[in-house]
Amino acid sequence: MSRTLRAAVIGLGSMGANHARVLADTPGVELVAVADPDAERVRKAVQGRPIPGFETAAALLAETRPDFVCVVVPTGLHEEVAMAAIEAGAHVLVEKPIAATLDAARRLADAAERAGVLLTVGHIERFNPAVRELKRRLDEGQGGRVLQVRARRVGPFPHRIRDVGVIHDLGPHDIDIMRYLLDDEVERVYAESRSHIATGNEDLFAGMLRFRGGAMGLLDINWLTPTKERSLTVLCERGMFTVDYAAQVLCFYENYAAAAREGVYASVTEGPMTRYPIASREPLRVELEAFRDAILAGGPPPVPASAGIAALAVAEALVRSGETGLPVSLDEVATLP
Amino acid sequence: MSRTLRAAVIGLGSMGANHARVLADTPGVELVAVADPDAERVRKAVQGRPIPGFETAAALLAETRPDFVCVVVPTGLHEEVAMAAIEAGAHVLVEKPIAATLDAARRLADAAERAGVLLTVGHIERFNPAVRELKRRLDEGQGGRVLQVRARRVGPFPHRIRDVGVIHDLGPHDIDIMRYLLDDEVERVYAESRSHIATGNEDLFAGMLRFRGGAMGLLDINWLTPTKERSLTVLCERGMFTVDYAAQVLCFYENYAAAAREGVYASVTEGPMTRYPIASREPLRVELEAFRDAILAGGPPPVPASAGIAALAVAEALVRSGETGLPVSLDEVATLP
Amino acid sequence: MSRTLRAAVIGLGSMGANHARVLADTPGVELVAVADPDAERVRKAVQGRPIPGFETAAALLAETRPDFVCVVVPTGLHEEVAMAAIEAGAHVLVEKPIAATLDAARRLADAAERAGVLLTVGHIERFNPAVRELKRRLDEGQGGRVLQVRARRVGPFPHRIRDVGVIHDLGPHDIDIMRYLLDDEVERVYAESRSHIATGNEDLFAGMLRFRGGAMGLLDINWLTPTKERSLTVLCERGMFTVDYAAQVLCFYENYAAAAREGVYASVTEGPMTRYPIASREPLRVELEAFRDAILAGGPPPVPASAGIAALAVAEALVRSGETGLPVSLDEVATLP
Amino acid sequence: MSRTLRAAVIGLGSMGANHARVLADTPGVELVAVADPDAERVRKAVQGRPIPGFETAAALLAETRPDFVCVVVPTGLHEEVAMAAIEAGAHVLVEKPIAATLDAARRLADAAERAGVLLTVGHIERFNPAVRELKRRLDEGQGGRVLQVRARRVGPFPHRIRDVGVIHDLGPHDIDIMRYLLDDEVERVYAESRSHIATGNEDLFAGMLRFRGGAMGLLDINWLTPTKERSLTVLCERGMFTVDYAAQVLCFYENYAAAAREGVYASVTEGPMTRYPIASREPLRVELEAFRDAILAGGPPPVPASAGIAALAVAEALVRSGETGLPVSLDEVATLP
Repeated sequence: MSRTLRAAVIGLGSMGANHARVLADTPGVELVAVADPDAERVRKAVQGRPIPGFETAAALLAETRPDFVCVVVPTGLHEEVAMAAIEAGAHVLVEKPIAATLDAARRLADAAERAGVLLTVGHIERFNPAVRELKRRLDEGQGGRVLQVRARRVGPFPHRIRDVGVIHDLGPHDIDIMRYLLDDEVERVYAESRSHIATGNEDLFAGMLRFRGGAMGLLDINWLTPTKERSLTVLCERGMFTVDYAAQVLCFYENYAAAAREGVYASVTEGPMTRYPIASREPLRVELEAFRDAILAGGPPPVPASAGIAALAVAEALVRSGETGLPVSLDEVATLP
Repeated sequence: MSRTLRAAVIGLGSMGANHARVLADTPGVELVAVADPDAERVRKAVQGRPIPGFETAAALLAETRPDFVCVVVPTGLHEEVAMAAIEAGAHVLVEKPIAATLDAARRLADAAERAGVLLTVGHIERFNPAVRELKRRLDEGQGGRVLQVRARRVGPFPHRIRDVGVIHDLGPHDIDIMRYLLDDEVERVYAESRSHIATGNEDLFAGMLRFRGGAMGLLDINWLTPTKERSLTVLCERGMFTVDYAAQVLCFYENYAAAAREGVYASVTEGPMTRYPIASREPLRVELEAFRDAILAGGPPPVPASAGIAALAVAEALVRSGETGLPVSLDEVATLP
Repeated sequence: MSRTLRAAVIGLGSMGANHARVLADTPGVELVAVADPDAERVRKAVQGRPIPGFETAAALLAETRPDFVCVVVPTGLHEEVAMAAIEAGAHVLVEKPIAATLDAARRLADAAERAGVLLTVGHIERFNPAVRELKRRLDEGQGGRVLQVRARRVGPFPHRIRDVGVIHDLGPHDIDIMRYLLDDEVERVYAESRSHIATGNEDLFAGMLRFRGGAMGLLDINWLTPTKERSLTVLCERGMFTVDYAAQVLCFYENYAAAAREGVYASVTEGPMTRYPIASREPLRVELEAFRDAILAGGPPPVPASAGIAALAVAEALVRSGETGLPVSLDEVATLP
Repeated sequence: MSRTLRAAVIGLGSMGANHARVLADTPGVELVAVADPDAERVRKAVQGRPIPGFETAAALLAETRPDFVCVVVPTGLHEEVAMAAIEAGAHVLVEKPIAATLDAARRLADAAERAGVLLTVGHIERFNPAVRELKRRLDEGQGGRVLQVRARRVGPFPHRIRDVGVIHDLGPHDIDIMRYLLDDEVERVYAESRSHIATGNEDLFAGMLRFRGGAMGLLDINWLTPTKERSLTVLCERGMFTVDYAAQVLCFYENYAAAAREGVYASVTEGPMTRYPIASREPLRVELEAFRDAILAGGPPPVPASAGIAALAVAEALVRSGETGLPVSLDEVATLP
């Protein structure tokens, strides 16, 4: 590796603290600074590490000039902080969703391009080893055409601070994974949402996505389930893949009938189920290594800003559908500010 | 038991053969005849049983005058055969869906009422011991308010003869169970469906139901999955119930936070999960015993015709939504023929 | 099929009633009579069937002269009833264990041979479709050498009548399966047993079997577990098979390292796990069809009497080890009466 | 917390590196030094930490005078290194097994007592949150009398360096847990072991333990299984507990019949199964915090040396039984050197 990259973390909530922990022992990276308005969080993050902590992003950027910055602040501050980092000449990883509005997201993407820095979005599930193995198998054609993708991401009510509802908080994970796996764009969506716990934001959500190529996407997301589940089902012509994100487990249920008559989707019968061996790794570590490598290689970013914008547009369309009770086409949100 | 009821089965496909098998050794019931246009099916059904087999419903009804009849013919013939049985003075169990059209269903219900016979619909999942235990617990208030019900009913492509798509074939099971558990009516629906195997009928389906009381229903149904799953999830304020229909397993995931502050839906945290012991029974047997008991008691039928009509109306609304790409209110289908 | 075999069932406890149910609709077989000293059991078994019921085996045999008989009486009566059937010229299936003592078992085997009738033992797990598929794969060499076989057969205390302890009641199932799968004989055993519920018989048991070829057998059997489990694990050089007897599920966990270096048992690493599709069938039905076919073919019996004797000898050795606290070699029990 | 304890880690294999990682951010503890003869391991362990690394235990002890030391060296070196630490006045945590021989173990215990330092053994499974919750429930009497404990600890062949066989490497975990949960001593054992991979040490093992109070212990341990399982089953009069060590899951299968008639062990029937919520924590962290607290409190150690000696004695008895083919009483090994 040619050189060591100097990295900083801005925002030290539970996710930001994880970024700091991982960067601290990532080869080829030196964690040089952290920042958060909460002094206690800063104190914990610098403990036992020979690095300074700052109250503001501005101070951190001015004093330490990092090569790259992880922006792990509340969504409403993504644009302001990421923009400051870009202007300071740093490559930027911004947590998902990329920004609070489509316009803000586009401004960030434009600014990064003008500044010649890499802007990537923390769509961390792409770096889950089980998802990477699934993507590899799909690209090899193991399943044939994808007919339906279902994601279920449910669990207890989170105690961390949120300034958005469950769609914007959790939805981008699976929206991005569906786009990534299908290599296709969402055409229209329909959604229902409810708000049961008095936070002013929706906490129970179900959505349907129609992709241009005809595949069907189902989202089942909420903060009201007293057990945690993060799962994905990819129904294909030749069989069904299932992913348990948390356990990093990938299985394939083979359709014997499809296998028997290649090229013709004749029928569906039960074949063997195989669970593939997956070498477990922390997705955040894989993500940050990928960003490091992209910076050293001069790009492109592991997840382009355009993917973050597309995922945000789908989330906006889902919110609008939940509010209007009608299907929403992605064209309708393309012009949203 | 005051008297033995004389029973007949019309239609001897795989489900009809099951009716005959169960009725043959149900206490208080004597299987007196079976009918099917397929001579081989008749031969098998009467083998080792001292009963006559008929080619037509008309012949069976005329010669044996049964107390009750199970109508297990293709959906398109439900009205004709059930009507003949009603006119012959027999109580009737008709398999789901109750009829091919809402008008036909209403004609059957009216005819049964005029004739003073019981008409029941084979919504068999109500008689699944795990569902009965769930209903009892919901009615006792264990879960508090129901927020969402999800049903998944998927599996390989069926080789038996079908004259309908997957919504009409499998959907009524879960539509009926949702209405039954929630004790509420569907207000509007949205659906997406696809037809991948060239049968002229949809084989991949996803639907959302909005109930009048606000609960959300999700249907995930298809014939394209190379492993069988029939499951139900009932998300409530105080916890989540799950049912595995086939294995007759009922679990409850308790929400500790809700339990802590009765009356206020404060939060959701992970509490214990409990799997209840269920005495396994064949649902068809429970269903036929319930019908026998209802006949001896002079009514009401275990599942009223109105429930069959309501489930059919929801299925019709889902089909229409799948065709139009728009949400459909139940009022819109109320006037369908 | 050349001719229809006339069959009878002697003993109508829960297992005997199952024999009658299955024989009543087995092609090529005609159930001609049943017998049990309990009049109510006889009444139930003949209900709806045009066959006579008897109080005694002697009467049944004298009056109906069946081609073959299923002997499903308490173990203490196996010899007497099976001997009577043999003397009446019938082929005999006797439930496991083959007899109450080794001497009785040998007398039965000798008598059958002299009479020229087939004697088979109801080691039903051999007819479990998951076990048959496992046997086929082992014989093809998929796993390589078998290193260890573990069986766990536990559940609630049975309410049916038993005149033996848990070793003789449940042990023969897995002892027979281990001999069958390994195609090898047990050399010595060690066992620990306890009696916790006051029945005079042991109800908690653990045993270790050493096979001549070096494989290790582990038995974990009791009536004190408040959930039912019947499972088998076959650890081989190239991977591990697991069987869930009740669910008829067969899985294989591949050892990648073994696969990499054929012929040398180099190491063990985690490879894929595969669950094979198994066409589910009732093992008793498969067993009785196999006996029917063996009779028509003029033998040999599906499970030879020698297998029943060998399984009984191992069970006797296990009991003796549990009593003495010492390992017992099979040679020691060979001369037992 | 009154003061910060200065800690050192001697031995930096994979387990030693974990000790260093955890101690580095344990409140109330300051990691002051590490040692290992392998320079590369030392380099990795001190990277990003302001601490010195040593080649030898002697140098580390002489120069840094730690308050406590974790001894994570090969078993054959336990005595030498732990003794040096004790002589340097440090409290000592030695990994399991406590030493290579019973005599060595006793010498360590005596030395620690004379020196007035705490000596504890790394029986880490006691600090598994699921085990702690189980112990609490057993002590409260939830299960009633324990009848049988089964442990299964199997998985692929380990690539780390070992100087002992599978009994000494993995067995002490479960031997210790059984003694701890039962609060009872092993009376006699029986074992079978095999060596299939040419390392000179046994790699396939099964053992039976008889406790003084009558409980039965079963050990199923090997390095030949191509999937990892670490599980525990505690069969009690009133139900069965199960633990998945790795997933930190604790379940209870209630025996309804026992519950119905308190005081009399009448029968066993299937009651509900409950999975308790467990707050997941890294056992090593809990263990090291417990040792820190014990040092600050002036003792006693979290796991006394006597427990380590007892577990080693049982392991020795199991090895001897495996070699002789006979049961071995614990009295027989009590006088072993």
